[in-house]
Amino acid sequence: MEARTYIAEHRDEFLSALKEWLAIPSVSADPDREGDVRRSAEWLARHLSETGFPTVETWETAGKPAVFAEWPARDPKAPVVLVYGHHDVQPVEPRDAWNTDPFVPEEQGQRLVGRGSSDDKGQVLFHTLGLRAGLASAGDTAPPVTVKLIVEGEEESGSPNFAALLEQNRQRLGCDVVVVSDTTMWSADTPSMCVGMRGMTDCRIDVYGPETDLHSGSFGGAVPNPASAMADLLSGMHDSDGRVAVPGFYDDVVEIDPAERDMIARLPFDESRWLRTASSAAPAGEAGYSTLERLWVRPTAEINGMWGGHTGAGRKTIVPSSAHANVSFRLVPNQEPARVQDRVREYIRANLPAGLRSDVEFNGPGVRPCASDTSSAAVRAARSAMSRAFGTEVLYTREGGSGPEADIADILGAPLVFVAVGLDEDGIHAPNEKVEIPLLLRGAESAAYLYWELAAALPE
Amino acid sequence: MEARTYIAEHRDEFLSALKEWLAIPSVSADPDREGDVRRSAEWLARHLSETGFPTVETWETAGKPAVFAEWPARDPKAPVVLVYGHHDVQPVEPRDAWNTDPFVPEEQGQRLVGRGSSDDKGQVLFHTLGLRAGLASAGDTAPPVTVKLIVEGEEESGSPNFAALLEQNRQRLGCDVVVVSDTTMWSADTPSMCVGMRGMTDCRIDVYGPETDLHSGSFGGAVPNPASAMADLLSGMHDSDGRVAVPGFYDDVVEIDPAERDMIARLPFDESRWLRTASSAAPAGEAGYSTLERLWVRPTAEINGMWGGHTGAGRKTIVPSSAHANVSFRLVPNQEPARVQDRVREYIRANLPAGLRSDVEFNGPGVRPCASDTSSAAVRAARSAMSRAFGTEVLYTREGGSGPEADIADILGAPLVFVAVGLDEDGIHAPNEKVEIPLLLRGAESAAYLYWELAAALPE
Repeated sequence: MEARTYIAEHRDEFLSALKEWLAIPSVSADPDREGDVRRSAEWLARHLSETGFPTVETWETAGKPAVFAEWPARDPKAPVVLVYGHHDVQPVEPRDAWNTDPFVPEEQGQRLVGRGSSDDKGQVLFHTLGLRAGLASAGDTAPPVTVKLIVEGEEESGSPNFAALLEQNRQRLGCDVVVVSDTTMWSADTPSMCVGMRGMTDCRIDVYGPETDLHSGSFGGAVPNPASAMADLLSGMHDSDGRVAVPGFYDDVVEIDPAERDMIARLPFDESRWLRTASSAAPAGEAGYSTLERLWVRPTAEINGMWGGHTGAGRKTIVPSSAHANVSFRLVPNQEPARVQDRVREYIRANLPAGLRSDVEFNGPGVRPCASDTSSAAVRAARSAMSRAFGTEVLYTREGGSGPEADIADILGAPLVFVAVGLDEDGIHAPNEKVEIPLLLRGAESAAYLYWELAAALPE
Repeated sequence: MEARTYIAEHRDEFLSALKEWLAIPSVSADPDREGDVRRSAEWLARHLSETGFPTVETWETAGKPAVFAEWPARDPKAPVVLVYGHHDVQPVEPRDAWNTDPFVPEEQGQRLVGRGSSDDKGQVLFHTLGLRAGLASAGDTAPPVTVKLIVEGEEESGSPNFAALLEQNRQRLGCDVVVVSDTTMWSADTPSMCVGMRGMTDCRIDVYGPETDLHSGSFGGAVPNPASAMADLLSGMHDSDGRVAVPGFYDDVVEIDPAERDMIARLPFDESRWLRTASSAAPAGEAGYSTLERLWVRPTAEINGMWGGHTGAGRKTIVPSSAHANVSFRLVPNQEPARVQDRVREYIRANLPAGLRSDVEFNGPGVRPCASDTSSAAVRAARSAMSRAFGTEVLYTREGGSGPEADIADILGAPLVFVAVGLDEDGIHAPNEKVEIPLLLRGAESAAYLYWELAAALPE
């Protein structure tokens, strides 16, 4: 039986299983939902056993439990594929903005509405249907590659214990490629594969001057003003071409591959529509790059906020005693957050006027950027699997945002491949989250081909 | 009898009168003290009558009452001198920081402690003692110039009704010179005369971008960031020499007279001690000017405050939807606040990046700078009177701050002369305000000579 036929025949069964899972409110950020997150892990473990995984385990962490499963290939030398996803979901607030109960999943035509339908339960579950469809199509009882799944329970809370879990189970999670199914495609009509995510590091900058606010008549013009110094520091972070002017910032930046650049240019991008989404009147950014390139393959320095002195209405003519800013930097391969942090600290130190003190505090180690090697066998195999499922060419995209994926690749020493069918308009962190059922089924079909494509493409 | 002897003999009587007046809590900013401000005006009116002023009137305004008095010279063609002061006082908060009751004036050695002792009741009252001493010394019963006094009751509340009062009584307040006794001297050892005050105009600048804060991963680097634009605008307000870089800002600035510059250089200025007062680690400002010149004779652009986006602790990686700043400009002769406002608006308009909107809102018309003509007969006469009283050369100073004095000069069409004996360390807007009694008596002696010096110097 062809995979597509198998999937069509098992559509209703798949959806009713997914609805069961979606009904469990596994909000990891809500302490009152701790039991629900555990029930969600247990539901998934049971479902994976029913799917045929011989090994299914619930892994405890310092926080919420993760689920691990393994289905070995018959050939012990076959490649190993690890699927990453998460079974926890975002909070539902503002609850009043939902048109349905977020935890009573509802089919509305070709859509399934409910918290977690797209992010990420629907996308985890299509792998089980896909794997069964692939086996049915191959007439086999074991996958052609060893399939492992690691589905964490704290992704929506920043994965505080996930790196430790990976480190601790590095051996059992050993794999040749990591398949991430937790992102989106360009659109329903233009299937695509994400091949990179920007990294991020962010800091708070403080500039201190006089011990107290000074009267600007009595002192103004003769002492350094911390707010002016902050304005200079922030302004100096970009040159007139919109490039980040922190010395050394671009040292490790890999220029985009011309082939990928061409593929980005072929995406049907409607800039004026995008500007409406951004509620902005004009594009801006680094000279020489398109909007999508600025978002995906170029690093940034972004003022997230700034404050200091008299921030209210009316007049208070002071030289403020201090000024502050929150600044984040989006990073691209091969920028290392730690090196960027050093460069920013050096920049502040080198440019602070005499008579002021400064402090630069980064929020943690930052998130590394990641990218798939588009010339690798794994990417080509995954792209082929998706192309067969969607019946059309699959283009490359990237994500401007940042996630823990680079850490997975780093800790496990395996490349990443993104196979996902979410859409930007699914509302994944918003009210009325939904998933397009036809896309979920295409995802399953992609998975049905993926393991066999990978078996053929990857070296034993 | 010499004026100095007269003053010494009437010291106790003068101090007990002043203490009576200081005991009236004429806090114009406190609605509960409205009756006290009126009592203060009545007390002064009575005291001026007792001093000998034939005309004494309480002038009503839309707010608190002012006191007007006039003592004509025998010669109707004699010059007319108008003394300006105020009878209202600052609030006493924080009350707990006072070591005595602010309205139970107390002599502590050579000091008189109490709210209003220096600002401004003590300095208004020394004119009555001085005038009586001058008359005793001259053996006359009328002053050699027509002496008028206008003592307002809302100076500490921003003089909201004073300009209207002046306009309305322009005729009766007509004069050849205005003597202002509401400022300070360099120090007890270095008597000085203020010959100018900076003007001021201040605004709020708003820069608007996206309608809501945007996710910096999804949008950062491809839309204009209002906080970055604000940093650029604020940073661009100064060049690397510390000069204000708003085009046209210096167009009307009068360079300081070399003679006044020399006199400023002769003031015993201890910069490291001044930096401690400013609780600042280093001086800063416009290249080519000393600290005192920067404070007194050079205009400034000062960021009083700025805010926008995520201004709290922790991470919120957004492109903020707006950014804001409060900026004040100290002005020197002959800058006009209205022209500076136009220049600032033009600067913002010309430098705002595409895709952003801005708004610039000035707080009222601003305050004009003022300066006395140091070569004028009035300034020379006043300087001579003070030099005789203090027995030493009197140097010129200025004030970096701004007051309504320029309006008085402007409305009445008469030049300003500052004759005052307050000290910076009197704590005039702070707890434990005091005045040095020996300086008050020198002030009285200055007044005793002033009217006769002016009579001799001014053209009839």
